[in-house]
Amino acid sequence: MCYERTDMAIESAALFNKSKEEVSKINGVIVEEEIKNEIHISKVKITDQNGAEAVGKPVGEYITIDIDFFMDKGEKFRDDLMDVVSHELKKIINIEKKSTVFVIGLGNEKITPDALGPKVVDNLNITRHLFEEAPVYTDENTQSVCAISPGVLGITGIETVEVIKGISDRVKPGAVICIDALATRSIKRLSSSIQISDTGITPGAGVGNRRHTINYQTIGVPVIALGVPTVVDGATIANDSIRLLCDAVGNYSSQTTKGFIEKLNDEDRYSLVKEILRPYGSGLIVTPKDIDSLIEDMAIIIASSINRALGNE
Amino acid sequence: MCYERTDMAIESAALFNKSKEEVSKINGVIVEEEIKNEIHISKVKITDQNGAEAVGKPVGEYITIDIDFFMDKGEKFRDDLMDVVSHELKKIINIEKKSTVFVIGLGNEKITPDALGPKVVDNLNITRHLFEEAPVYTDENTQSVCAISPGVLGITGIETVEVIKGISDRVKPGAVICIDALATRSIKRLSSSIQISDTGITPGAGVGNRRHTINYQTIGVPVIALGVPTVVDGATIANDSIRLLCDAVGNYSSQTTKGFIEKLNDEDRYSLVKEILRPYGSGLIVTPKDIDSLIEDMAIIIASSINRALGNE
Amino acid sequence: MCYERTDMAIESAALFNKSKEEVSKINGVIVEEEIKNEIHISKVKITDQNGAEAVGKPVGEYITIDIDFFMDKGEKFRDDLMDVVSHELKKIINIEKKSTVFVIGLGNEKITPDALGPKVVDNLNITRHLFEEAPVYTDENTQSVCAISPGVLGITGIETVEVIKGISDRVKPGAVICIDALATRSIKRLSSSIQISDTGITPGAGVGNRRHTINYQTIGVPVIALGVPTVVDGATIANDSIRLLCDAVGNYSSQTTKGFIEKLNDEDRYSLVKEILRPYGSGLIVTPKDIDSLIEDMAIIIASSINRALGNE
Amino acid sequence: MCYERTDMAIESAALFNKSKEEVSKINGVIVEEEIKNEIHISKVKITDQNGAEAVGKPVGEYITIDIDFFMDKGEKFRDDLMDVVSHELKKIINIEKKSTVFVIGLGNEKITPDALGPKVVDNLNITRHLFEEAPVYTDENTQSVCAISPGVLGITGIETVEVIKGISDRVKPGAVICIDALATRSIKRLSSSIQISDTGITPGAGVGNRRHTINYQTIGVPVIALGVPTVVDGATIANDSIRLLCDAVGNYSSQTTKGFIEKLNDEDRYSLVKEILRPYGSGLIVTPKDIDSLIEDMAIIIASSINRALGNE
Repeated sequence: MCYERTDMAIESAALFNKSKEEVSKINGVIVEEEIKNEIHISKVKITDQNGAEAVGKPVGEYITIDIDFFMDKGEKFRDDLMDVVSHELKKIINIEKKSTVFVIGLGNEKITPDALGPKVVDNLNITRHLFEEAPVYTDENTQSVCAISPGVLGITGIETVEVIKGISDRVKPGAVICIDALATRSIKRLSSSIQISDTGITPGAGVGNRRHTINYQTIGVPVIALGVPTVVDGATIANDSIRLLCDAVGNYSSQTTKGFIEKLNDEDRYSLVKEILRPYGSGLIVTPKDIDSLIEDMAIIIASSINRALGNE
Repeated sequence: MCYERTDMAIESAALFNKSKEEVSKINGVIVEEEIKNEIHISKVKITDQNGAEAVGKPVGEYITIDIDFFMDKGEKFRDDLMDVVSHELKKIINIEKKSTVFVIGLGNEKITPDALGPKVVDNLNITRHLFEEAPVYTDENTQSVCAISPGVLGITGIETVEVIKGISDRVKPGAVICIDALATRSIKRLSSSIQISDTGITPGAGVGNRRHTINYQTIGVPVIALGVPTVVDGATIANDSIRLLCDAVGNYSSQTTKGFIEKLNDEDRYSLVKEILRPYGSGLIVTPKDIDSLIEDMAIIIASSINRALGNE
Repeated sequence: MCYERTDMAIESAALFNKSKEEVSKINGVIVEEEIKNEIHISKVKITDQNGAEAVGKPVGEYITIDIDFFMDKGEKFRDDLMDVVSHELKKIINIEKKSTVFVIGLGNEKITPDALGPKVVDNLNITRHLFEEAPVYTDENTQSVCAISPGVLGITGIETVEVIKGISDRVKPGAVICIDALATRSIKRLSSSIQISDTGITPGAGVGNRRHTINYQTIGVPVIALGVPTVVDGATIANDSIRLLCDAVGNYSSQTTKGFIEKLNDEDRYSLVKEILRPYGSGLIVTPKDIDSLIEDMAIIIASSINRALGNE
Repeated sequence: MCYERTDMAIESAALFNKSKEEVSKINGVIVEEEIKNEIHISKVKITDQNGAEAVGKPVGEYITIDIDFFMDKGEKFRDDLMDVVSHELKKIINIEKKSTVFVIGLGNEKITPDALGPKVVDNLNITRHLFEEAPVYTDENTQSVCAISPGVLGITGIETVEVIKGISDRVKPGAVICIDALATRSIKRLSSSIQISDTGITPGAGVGNRRHTINYQTIGVPVIALGVPTVVDGATIANDSIRLLCDAVGNYSSQTTKGFIEKLNDEDRYSLVKEILRPYGSGLIVTPKDIDSLIEDMAIIIASSINRALGNE
């Protein structure tokens, strides 16, 4: 039973805060790590059904790019970061030059921490219409790119997967890239991390609204998901506090108390968290105060990385 | 040859400023007028191909609802206006209760005078998803409504008609309503007029960008268009000035000058207008200074009228 | 020592979750409670320096109006709420009809949970300039109202108190009303509570940025503060979790463990909370996901209540 | 009699479209021109009361920086333009390093073509508070800069000059810079021109709302005005059309007609323009369709130029 809502594979109960040795014992899961220019890259490969069940995510590859929140974010660092993101994206999308890439900006532009997807779409180089309307602006290196921000079910009345499938059937892209804001269980990942995967995405999965999944099975073309954590669920910070306290209490106390604490982990912790957050149901989020400008900034970095990955800078 | 850009049937060269007698001579065109609570309603029915060629619009019905710009817009008047709009809309859409209505907010939300469509969608009651997800909020009088603001070709790289056709093929609505900001040649219609027609719409037609038409032929279901004029093309106000001057000069001057003025109407007027507006190409518009708040206001009136027409208030 | 950041007198350590009997033992503090139409009104009167030290707030009156978050917020309820707020505001401001009221919208309009003040100002009826420019729109019941949103120190480089003092010296108002977003330690008060006081305000006091206080002493006219809680400091929810756990553990465990828990309350709890939130310093907030629309809504209610209190509806 | 509304000295009736020889005959007016990197710089110096009456502007210097609308606006050009603007601004403000510069963003941020001033303020480097609060971010080259966007009279109920005077009395700046959106009579200057003057500014002067002037006499410190044309008054384009037609008719027609045309210039032209624009009073403006993004762009260029002029890049 897991009370931490997260959209990130690396944060699943099976992998979170686990050593390499512990993870290597899980069949069907391979984890690799790499550091480039102070940017930390973790790759989780889920290779079979056993791994999928252990991690709670479909078979596929999940790349997490973490940047240090306190690091000075100068021009050089931004450029290095875009290099890393575009490099990983290019490898995972692996598309022919003559195909169209269809980018989807998931989320609700009117709710700040949910606006990342639409803002990325606003900053993308869109080229698909130029091939017919203004071919002078295209050459043999231009990748055809189109994009839409379909809105959310509560606003449109249409499942996002229906919108994307409907348009894809006409546009016939070679790949779909879905951009979304994610939930994380790590405060330090807020606006400081990017997850790329080749397994598609279930909009709202990390915060409890299960929508129909957008992936190769439902759309009919490969679906790359690229997300940035922008919220921590309110329950997570309560839970983190209690876990740390349990550790502290456990270290100092008698066997009797230890037994209580261990029992608490399974039952009472859940009811405590529920008690603390009851007034707001699941609608409470933890977010940086300057989330508005952080999202503007991250949207530009991601749009530029996509442009670079596709050769459309 | 007509240098006035307009999206309104009532303003076509064949009908603009014409008397009932003059119009009645055109085969295939019927014009009716009515005034309700100080709201002026004009209906142009184009009944055959001859009428279509005369007016320059497809066969069908075009309803223009004009409100006096200087009229006090109190609550009572707003309610009367919503009654008129919803009444005309209900008649022209004529849809069964069990069908879905699919509303399209055309235009670019980021450009003020083009944002009407997306703003109407933001204010609509969306119900289609409730029938499955929260049936308690629906009853036998609830019309299923879904909506999307697809963006414009320059931002998405996808023809709007492709987006609508793709989604319609999945949603299978009984009717589509397209909302758009229109160009008018009458300054006094800016934010003070509503045109409803059953002939579909060609996005951007009135300001020179011909996109593929959204109508029964391209989408496969009836398409109602509802628009509000928000801009006058820059060329129109220049042209209007010159026409009025020509009239004034003509009345006072000799036969020789009259000949010159008549000649001017056909050739030099065009080059004069071109000369005046050359620095801006076709990008120059005339708009009220408070267009931001006028569009907010009109979007609420139209969304409420649609809700009322469909019984979803 | 208190690690809970709050701007609300009713939530100070001396008063929070205390019974009437406990509070009645504090010299210099009187608490009254009242319920009108399901709206809960608490009044804390701090009558002398002893009370001020106990509560940690200046001598004066603090009115807290709490609404139940889950209550259906229909038109009738909104009207009742505006009645309560305008009634309390009218009593506390107690201004002559011929004086000017100067309303200040504190906070940063570009940061969602900090935008309440500027949004209230946008919705106020401003009348001061009409007396000279358009007297036809005024009569003997019109209160002169002017307003400004001065921005925050980091954006303007000017202490807010300097801006207000400078303008007040020219406008010479009879009273100043400062509107601000507040920090609360109670999740259920988020966007569901209004505090009115006659003691002025220290912008940013509740979230750690101490600016110069805006009050009678610094401005030279009475200063009413009206605020709505929009954020819970990240530390508070961590702290709340730990306190609840300590209670739970304490009830079940041995004397030894109880001693540990009590010791923890004073020292380790603080370092635990610091540890949990370290990655974000003090910039982490807890807020409802739909804060954007909650603030829009509350801004209209407060602006309407001020208009009503001053007879300018 | 002049029916063209303009805020630009270079467009006054005495100077507009006049040759150097014609202008040199006006006592008290000196005009100089210069071209740097394809940027056209015109300087009008009004040296005495005779010149002031001829031009209809106070004694002082007016610098107009014109850029070609169709020119490719690459990074290099932007940098050249910022060099020119910062160079002229530095000369005209001529301030000591130890003084504070107080920047005022005039206009209404909520109305697109009026939002330039507030947007420039949003992009400025603000430093005045750092000297006390975070001196580590300042050195001997840092100029103290503070700024405010005071809103407009209709929103605040306070004359802008009162706001600025009140704050200036406390901040005691060495100079004030007022940023405002201007009216022009030249379509090609829309978002393509910058006027800098040392004579202060009368908010709304160019579009008919005369507010109290902000200048050395009313504020007590030198006031530099920096503006960008964002609108053409509706009357101007009508008038331009008629003037061009009159020229055309005049060249071809008999003495009788010429006499009529001359007479028309004085009387009928005015009533014609009034007739054309009557439905909208003075609220009608001509603006580029993409004014939203043009103003964003220009605000960044001007803010960067001010930062550069003051050594605060």
